[in-house]
Amino acid sequence: MKILVVGANGQVGKHLVNFIQKKENMEARAMIRKEEQASYFKDLGAEVAVADLEDEIEKIAKAAEGVDAIVFTAGSGPKTGKDKTLMVDLDGAVKTIEAAKQANVKRYVMVSSFDTSREAIQSAPDAFAPYIVAKHYADEWLRASDLDYTIVHPGGLTNNPGKNQVQLGEKVDRGEIPREDVARVIIAALENNATIGKAFKAVEGNAFVEDAIKSI
Amino acid sequence: MKILVVGANGQVGKHLVNFIQKKENMEARAMIRKEEQASYFKDLGAEVAVADLEDEIEKIAKAAEGVDAIVFTAGSGPKTGKDKTLMVDLDGAVKTIEAAKQANVKRYVMVSSFDTSREAIQSAPDAFAPYIVAKHYADEWLRASDLDYTIVHPGGLTNNPGKNQVQLGEKVDRGEIPREDVARVIIAALENNATIGKAFKAVEGNAFVEDAIKSI
Repeated sequence: MKILVVGANGQVGKHLVNFIQKKENMEARAMIRKEEQASYFKDLGAEVAVADLEDEIEKIAKAAEGVDAIVFTAGSGPKTGKDKTLMVDLDGAVKTIEAAKQANVKRYVMVSSFDTSREAIQSAPDAFAPYIVAKHYADEWLRASDLDYTIVHPGGLTNNPGKNQVQLGEKVDRGEIPREDVARVIIAALENNATIGKAFKAVEGNAFVEDAIKSI
Repeated sequence: MKILVVGANGQVGKHLVNFIQKKENMEARAMIRKEEQASYFKDLGAEVAVADLEDEIEKIAKAAEGVDAIVFTAGSGPKTGKDKTLMVDLDGAVKTIEAAKQANVKRYVMVSSFDTSREAIQSAPDAFAPYIVAKHYADEWLRASDLDYTIVHPGGLTNNPGKNQVQLGEKVDRGEIPREDVARVIIAALENNATIGKAFKAVEGNAFVEDAIKSI
């Protein structure tokens, strides 16, 4: 299974490509914005495709040609303005969904925010609400597509070492999760077709990822 | 026909409420953010409803109770940041669409931007693209709804006196249009059910509004 990792140069993305390359039945293609970012991925034996989420859909579709799945784990990040929230977190995400359709890639895993519900938008602090709005509409666009999607809603991301132990579910209390374990959850989702058409939250917990994913 | 005007206190909105109140078969309910804005509308004999696009859907639905149509002509305006573009131009618009459903209001007229197509997003200057993205998704949300919608894409808005002469169509060259004439186009759309399910651009031109609308 070849997987296009969108946002490969992000912190979750790097863990993800690393893990994918270690799996026998998976290989990664890292979508990166600049050729200068390629060496990390080439050293892991992964393919790279240079494309930007602000590029046209056609260019992103070209980066997705021949893969079996797309994982969206990009984010405009806290250092950029709300303009990038609109252009990357919302429109960039939607363009990868449209690119998946163009490139005939059916499987799509979205890394969303912990709670992108209407209630979360209404109760969020002013500074955070626009980000949730962007993620909300990206999730909605994916749900309305005919892709084989899975939406992962991770808790607060940490750089703690992963434990491979999580709690997954539609309703779990807000918590943290190491980025490394988010990457593990994504891989487990890709390996379990029962996660297709599902959305679930992911925080650290007591169940091994490979077991927890079976309860979804 | 009673019409909820969302964004009544804006420049198009004020013209619109004024015209509606002059029509024999129409009456307006002005949705405004603050009670202090009410006097202009009360002086015209219009109803007012105080609600904010950042309020919950339920509150907007309450403002829409008992009307026959909703016109969305609100905008966050150029003075606010891109956070408001997300919260008002996108999410605020979508909330009025959801409010229409909740309040069983079938007819909905959206005042959009001149070109909210994918191509327009890609070719827009960096500073303007996020606004087009927001309007694009609001339009898409409306199209995907089961409302009896009309989407009006006006050209560059001016405060020139209206002439009641326009060019309307799916493909018209970019141009300007007085805000007063945008208000006239909205009224004509509400009066012509053939505009249901349609989207069209509107710029100043040579045809009287009531004739031009028949060609849609």
